[in-house]
Amino acid sequence: MPFWKKDPVKKEIFTNVAEGLRQVYKSKLLPLEEAYRFHEFHSPQLDDCDFSAKPMVLLVGQYSVGKTTFIRYLLNEDFPGIRIGPEPTTDSFIAIMNNDHAGTIPGNALVVDPSKPFRPLSKFGNAFLNRFVCSQLRNEVLETVTFIDTPGILSGEKQRVDRGYEFTQVLEWFADRCDRILLLFDVSSLDISDELKRAIEVLRRNDDKIRIVLNKADTVDHQALMRVYGALMWSLGKVLGTPEVCRVYVGSFWSKPLQFDSNRRLFELETKDLFDDLESLPKTATLRKLNDLIKRARLAKVHALIVSELRESMPSVFGKDSKRKELINKLHLVYEKVQREHNIPLGDFPKIDRMQESLRNMQDFTKFKILDKKLLERVDRMLAEDVPKLMSMIPQEEHAFLQLQSQTTQ
Amino acid sequence: MPFWKKDPVKKEIFTNVAEGLRQVYKSKLLPLEEAYRFHEFHSPQLDDCDFSAKPMVLLVGQYSVGKTTFIRYLLNEDFPGIRIGPEPTTDSFIAIMNNDHAGTIPGNALVVDPSKPFRPLSKFGNAFLNRFVCSQLRNEVLETVTFIDTPGILSGEKQRVDRGYEFTQVLEWFADRCDRILLLFDVSSLDISDELKRAIEVLRRNDDKIRIVLNKADTVDHQALMRVYGALMWSLGKVLGTPEVCRVYVGSFWSKPLQFDSNRRLFELETKDLFDDLESLPKTATLRKLNDLIKRARLAKVHALIVSELRESMPSVFGKDSKRKELINKLHLVYEKVQREHNIPLGDFPKIDRMQESLRNMQDFTKFKILDKKLLERVDRMLAEDVPKLMSMIPQEEHAFLQLQSQTTQ
Ligand SMILES: Nc1ncnc2c1ncn2[C@@H]1O[C@H](COP(=O)(O)OP(=O)(O)OP(=O)(O)O)[C@@H](O)[C@H]1O
Ligand SMILES: Nc1ncnc2c1ncn2[C@@H]1O[C@H](COP(=O)(O)OP(=O)(O)OP(=O)(O)O)[C@@H](O)[C@H]1O
Ligand SMILES: [Mg+2]
Ligand SMILES: [Mg+2]
Repeated sequence: MPFWKKDPVKKEIFTNVAEGLRQVYKSKLLPLEEAYRFHEFHSPQLDDCDFSAKPMVLLVGQYSVGKTTFIRYLLNEDFPGIRIGPEPTTDSFIAIMNNDHAGTIPGNALVVDPSKPFRPLSKFGNAFLNRFVCSQLRNEVLETVTFIDTPGILSGEKQRVDRGYEFTQVLEWFADRCDRILLLFDVSSLDISDELKRAIEVLRRNDDKIRIVLNKADTVDHQALMRVYGALMWSLGKVLGTPEVCRVYVGSFWSKPLQFDSNRRLFELETKDLFDDLESLPKTATLRKLNDLIKRARLAKVHALIVSELRESMPSVFGKDSKRKELINKLHLVYEKVQREHNIPLGDFPKIDRMQESLRNMQDFTKFKILDKKLLERVDRMLAEDVPKLMSMIPQEEHAFLQLQSQTTQ
Repeated sequence: MPFWKKDPVKKEIFTNVAEGLRQVYKSKLLPLEEAYRFHEFHSPQLDDCDFSAKPMVLLVGQYSVGKTTFIRYLLNEDFPGIRIGPEPTTDSFIAIMNNDHAGTIPGNALVVDPSKPFRPLSKFGNAFLNRFVCSQLRNEVLETVTFIDTPGILSGEKQRVDRGYEFTQVLEWFADRCDRILLLFDVSSLDISDELKRAIEVLRRNDDKIRIVLNKADTVDHQALMRVYGALMWSLGKVLGTPEVCRVYVGSFWSKPLQFDSNRRLFELETKDLFDDLESLPKTATLRKLNDLIKRARLAKVHALIVSELRESMPSVFGKDSKRKELINKLHLVYEKVQREHNIPLGDFPKIDRMQESLRNMQDFTKFKILDKKLLERVDRMLAEDVPKLMSMIPQEEHAFLQLQSQTTQ
């Protein structure tokens, strides 16, 4: 049984919060960003899919460890284009997403679809796009999470020759953007090949997202499992190199009965823990979106104050150019003035050298907009009213609340 | 129940073989060694205790992991001077050996006792000798194995200040000479402190002797045990650095009932495996002694042939010194002659540069003994008759036999 079924209310909530954030952004923050050219200075405008995108779970591992079977187990049904078998089977990156119309979309069409978060992938070229598809189906689990199935890692020549694109670079792209990386091993293929090692090395930057799965753990007896598990940890410690031990979930992640069942209770607990972890992703992702929007709004406010202050400081007729240079070089004086007059914490200000660099690329400061209090007030209201309202919709443990607060007040 | 009880015959055999080797050495090989000054060239005369010494098992680990309790468990009784407790208790290196008279012998007396293999330890001085004792008792297990209990490793200042001797150097001495190193951890103290790390680093040269014990494994539940065990392997892999995974025995090594018993069967199997490993030590050690003696006899033979050849080549009256120099510089010609005339494999010859160096320290080659065929024949008979007879006394798996043969014919 798919595990998300147990709380359909939550799913609804996260969709509502995401949609709420999108609307608030469009109506209250975006106008300020546009007025003060925030996108040229800091970061591009947020798309709809930045709000609606589901948390992504990336599955990585040697061929035949059971990645595709794992997804099938969670979905409790086949997805379009699914292939499972003892030989290397999955030959493409497959994004498995929720949609009322079941079917597959080829990579070239995917990367031009503005409603999907895959547009940047076009840079990996056709050799990759021919090996990238989206598999769509209507499935409750997919209402909250997107899975990325990947081709199994082969060792030696085969890997290099067969693929026409840079496998590890693509992997890295997904690792940077996903919310969880499941690194799968099975008890019969523990050897970490050079290729697998290279793959793990590109994941390392996102090591906080990594969880290890030791699959097919019921196919060996208890003592052999201890050996295998120990050997895995022995070599993973060396490859991942972090002092913190990575969480490993030991079990058999498919619906067939266990072969050796002396560890049944352990496997059940481990499966539960892993599912709990995956279940927490929508909430974590929503909290992250909320958090990012708050940070963005604070930055946009300070940005507007700085830029309008620069505008006000410009002479109306002569000496524009030398004044511009002076303002850039003594930007810290502008920061100090803004800070004093508007009582804004220093941590909200953009890094001074990056700001100076951006300003050097702007020719005419007199084209900056003077201070528009209405736009600012709109953002203040968003922070004081809309965001707390959205936040209160999320069912929270105290812990997550505190964490969020400490992050946003930094 | 002590585990060696199950095969009292074996114990007898190994004692007999060791005694046989000692007698054969004394009567057949030693005369040849003495006649051709083997001890000045290659290695000192073998003592009685080189034959009679039991295989040594060294226990190492943080304080309170249960090293002393482990020994008590194997012996099934207390040994003189035993101290067990939750605080750092064992404060000395304790050699636990078999003897009809129970009692302890202090370090200073131990290192002058020619019947014990501890004489070289005097070099570590009084601060160490005051912390070194031999605990003697009559115990069946000790008829085949000697245990070395060690003070638990403390972390931080305490370790450095309290001990007046170089703990790691002493540890290294024992590690070089013992047959098995048991590195103990317990589930509640996994953190590898800097001090423990340094200790493990000196053991690393003998990594083939190391076995890990994860003790008190019944004091946590199944899932927690997996976490703890995984974390141990994670950090051990990094500290030991070998690609081969070290064997870890998971269990509770004392006689009290288990706390969490979902792993009972696993613990029983692990205990059995560990005991089997320890039980194999007397045999391995005996085979090693046999092997060493065969190698030594072959070297002693070649040595006698070389030295007597040098003697024969010396002029009787004039030009002794220049001839001596010539012989040393063209030693390879002597090697070739000996090889040709006596049909001896090249691998039996001592390294030519080391032999030249030794010869440069010998002033008068005319004092070398000429070839004594009787002495040589005695050694040949020893190799052809006595040694095979002793070897056949040892109950062998085919594997060990083949291994030994391939080693001695190299
Ligand atoms: N939990 C499990 N226990 C035992 N066998 C399993 C388990 N999960 C999958 N398998 C079997 O392992 C084989 C490989 O499964 P699957 O195709 O899902 O692996 P994969 O990691 O997706 O491989 P690839 O990288 O080639 O796509 C199949 O034969 C499948 O039936
Ligand atoms: N298998 C076990 N399960 C639970 N507790 C144990 C076990 N073995 C020993 N203990 C307890 O752990 C404590 C430490 O035991 P012990 O003195 O044998 O450790 P040690 O490693 O020799 O310590 P030290 O290095 O200080 O000599 C004692 O209280 C003992 O009763
Ligand atoms: Mg697959
Ligand atoms: Mg002790």
